[in-house]
Amino acid sequence: MSVIAELSMFPMDKGTSVSPFVKRVLGVIQASGISHQLNPMGTVLEGEWTEVMAVIDRCYSELAEDCDRIYMTLKVDARKGRTNGMRSKVAALQG
Amino acid sequence: MSVIAELSMFPMDKGTSVSPFVKRVLGVIQASGISHQLNPMGTVLEGEWTEVMAVIDRCYSELAEDCDRIYMTLKVDARKGRTNGMRSKVAALQG
Amino acid sequence: MSVIAELSMFPMDKGTSVSPFVKRVLGVIQASGISHQLNPMGTVLEGEWTEVMAVIDRCYSELAEDCDRIYMTLKVDARKGRTNGMRSKVAALQG
Amino acid sequence: MSVIAELSMFPMDKGTSVSPFVKRVLGVIQASGISHQLNPMGTVLEGEWTEVMAVIDRCYSELAEDCDRIYMTLKVDARKGRTNGMRSKVAALQG
Repeated sequence: MSVIAELSMFPMDKGTSVSPFVKRVLGVIQASGISHQLNPMGTVLEGEWTEVMAVIDRCYSELAEDCDRIYMTLKVDARKGRTNGMRSKVAALQG
Repeated sequence: MSVIAELSMFPMDKGTSVSPFVKRVLGVIQASGISHQLNPMGTVLEGEWTEVMAVIDRCYSELAEDCDRIYMTLKVDARKGRTNGMRSKVAALQG
Repeated sequence: MSVIAELSMFPMDKGTSVSPFVKRVLGVIQASGISHQLNPMGTVLEGEWTEVMAVIDRCYSELAEDCDRIYMTLKVDARKGRTNGMRSKVAALQG
Repeated sequence: MSVIAELSMFPMDKGTSVSPFVKRVLGVIQASGISHQLNPMGTVLEGEWTEVMAVIDRCYSELAEDCDRIYMTLKVDARKGRTNGMRSKVAALQG
């Protein structure tokens, strides 16, 4: 199945400005090589379930190093036989 | 406060392909004139709380006309004194 | 339609322990008289769309009084003809 | 860290009544032996990150067997040094 997942992950113990931490999460995603797309409320990842979940696992480990409280929301849309899902979902709505 | 909100809304009683319905929701958002940005997992809106919630209300009414079951997720980040939030949040992460 | 909605709302500018603020949100919900149920990750509300959204509006106003950054997630399941939804959904799974 | 996670997972290709599938997901959670609590909008799990994510992985595999489209939302609150988190979070709000 093609998994499209939107991840938001940030510390709750580091004050109001969490962007340095979100930047580290984004760094982990970029280093993984997985297809992804940043938006103002999260990062959308695309891949197989195992691949996507492995990246999320590394994102969590990154923050868990020095954060004492972490909040995460994850939204997943898995669909059999879909290819190039991030692009095709948006195209279907704009067409 | 500047409210950035990501909305996903779709029917659960219309089969697997919900894009015609998501298109109608997007039409309501576009017609409202509110700042917004589509991504593969939802649409990000930006405005004052009252303005954003009024648009979401109209999106719901649109689907409630002919859908018997509707699922919605909404994620909100409200912040005092932020301007041009959708752009600035992404820029802060890419800079 | 019967709307069941799960709300999580907390400040991001008040440090790690946000329970005093979540308590105020819960106070607003209780004062509203709407059917609700607390769980470790949020509060589930049940009512008509307009009624539920009006309560969420008051919750936001409560925190906006003294919080400079607020995070909220909302998950809605609206279904025509459902009665006593919070109870019946759980019962259907336990039966 | 103590992880409290709320999971909602259902098929989008099986019509309006998804409770037989949610029941199977719940069965996987129960069989895992992890601490959990059902509510009308999801199931709250508590454990270590790896333990919680392993259960979610099995839930996904269960539905992927015969579902062509799966939707999932996951909300995680991870906190260092918290014990008996599901109970203590609710108690802190009711006290």
